[in-house]
Amino acid sequence: MKFYDCKTAPSPRRVRIFLAEKGIELPTVDVDLGSREHLGMEFAKVNPRATVPVLALDDGTCICEATAVCRYLEEVYPEPNLMGVDAADRARVAMWDHIAEMDGFFPVAEALRNGNPHFKSRALTGPVDVEQIPGLAERGRARVARFFDMLDQRLGESEYVAGERFSVADITALVAVDFSRIIKMGLENSHRNARRWHEQVSARPGVVK
Amino acid sequence: MKFYDCKTAPSPRRVRIFLAEKGIELPTVDVDLGSREHLGMEFAKVNPRATVPVLALDDGTCICEATAVCRYLEEVYPEPNLMGVDAADRARVAMWDHIAEMDGFFPVAEALRNGNPHFKSRALTGPVDVEQIPGLAERGRARVARFFDMLDQRLGESEYVAGERFSVADITALVAVDFSRIIKMGLENSHRNARRWHEQVSARPGVVK
Repeated sequence: MKFYDCKTAPSPRRVRIFLAEKGIELPTVDVDLGSREHLGMEFAKVNPRATVPVLALDDGTCICEATAVCRYLEEVYPEPNLMGVDAADRARVAMWDHIAEMDGFFPVAEALRNGNPHFKSRALTGPVDVEQIPGLAERGRARVARFFDMLDQRLGESEYVAGERFSVADITALVAVDFSRIIKMGLENSHRNARRWHEQVSARPGVVK
Repeated sequence: MKFYDCKTAPSPRRVRIFLAEKGIELPTVDVDLGSREHLGMEFAKVNPRATVPVLALDDGTCICEATAVCRYLEEVYPEPNLMGVDAADRARVAMWDHIAEMDGFFPVAEALRNGNPHFKSRALTGPVDVEQIPGLAERGRARVARFFDMLDQRLGESEYVAGERFSVADITALVAVDFSRIIKMGLENSHRNARRWHEQVSARPGVVK
């Protein structure tokens, strides 16, 4: 197996934390997004959709999308469990992981990519250039604020995002919260439940940068 | 178990097809999105995020998000298999399902909700009203066109979206293609591989409306 990473990017950080929580070390290729290495001919053979993370299996199959990569790793390295212990628990984890991605992670990316001059013509990931929509940066920020409120409410009901155990849903939510610093957002002082959780999960040895 | 559906909506159609392919019939509640039933107090107890599908388990747990609902059903009713037969296959299915959702289904919704006067103030699903961004309707359409090109290329390489067997990734991609009719899009005549696949999967008895 080979892990295509980019040490400064939030999407592959989801997999970096997942691996560290499992205690797995994989041969890793650092893809230089800054110099647009992911948009080059060489990387197109690995992932024509031009995103990291990617997990290349020994038979040459390339698994893209953080959620699919984590799912594979969970099966191959089942302990410690990060995706649920029975059918209902696994469904709950999958649901919260999806919510954290859709309502947390993507809105941060939307606000960043549509608002920051550095991402001009790169408003979406992928091989095709896409122009920014300034109104979408603003809408993304409003969505992030709503996500933080929802997260705070949820973490008033349960210790971790998907229930009483740390799971991949905590990883996705944590990466979204930390990613929001780049758009100068973050949990508010009033988000006491979410701040309690953030401090707790950030202190885990597996929660790497 | 109880399935919260809406017979005219594409997201719960993913679950309707999944159930029909498995040969499962569940007690079903049809939520009337047209009269905004999903935005009412009663449905907020089922899903505060105000979306269908939802699968209510017998212990009262509500599983939201089509992908999590399907994952639960796959575990409880494993045959016929729709999510992969080994770790690599399951990762491939999860990857393509996610791509079909992100690059196909959501861009159709984006184009529809930001461009159609019927969705004024409803540019996003969820309990909070969100204004339309006209530029996003246009960008959504361009993304759908790129998705169809990508799908056509993929279906020139393999019989089904995730490989040589019908899977949940075909369901998500099919629902996205059919959903695009509402924004007056669809596969082009030049998409010969995707049209071959569309005809084939549409003819399955489980592929219900």
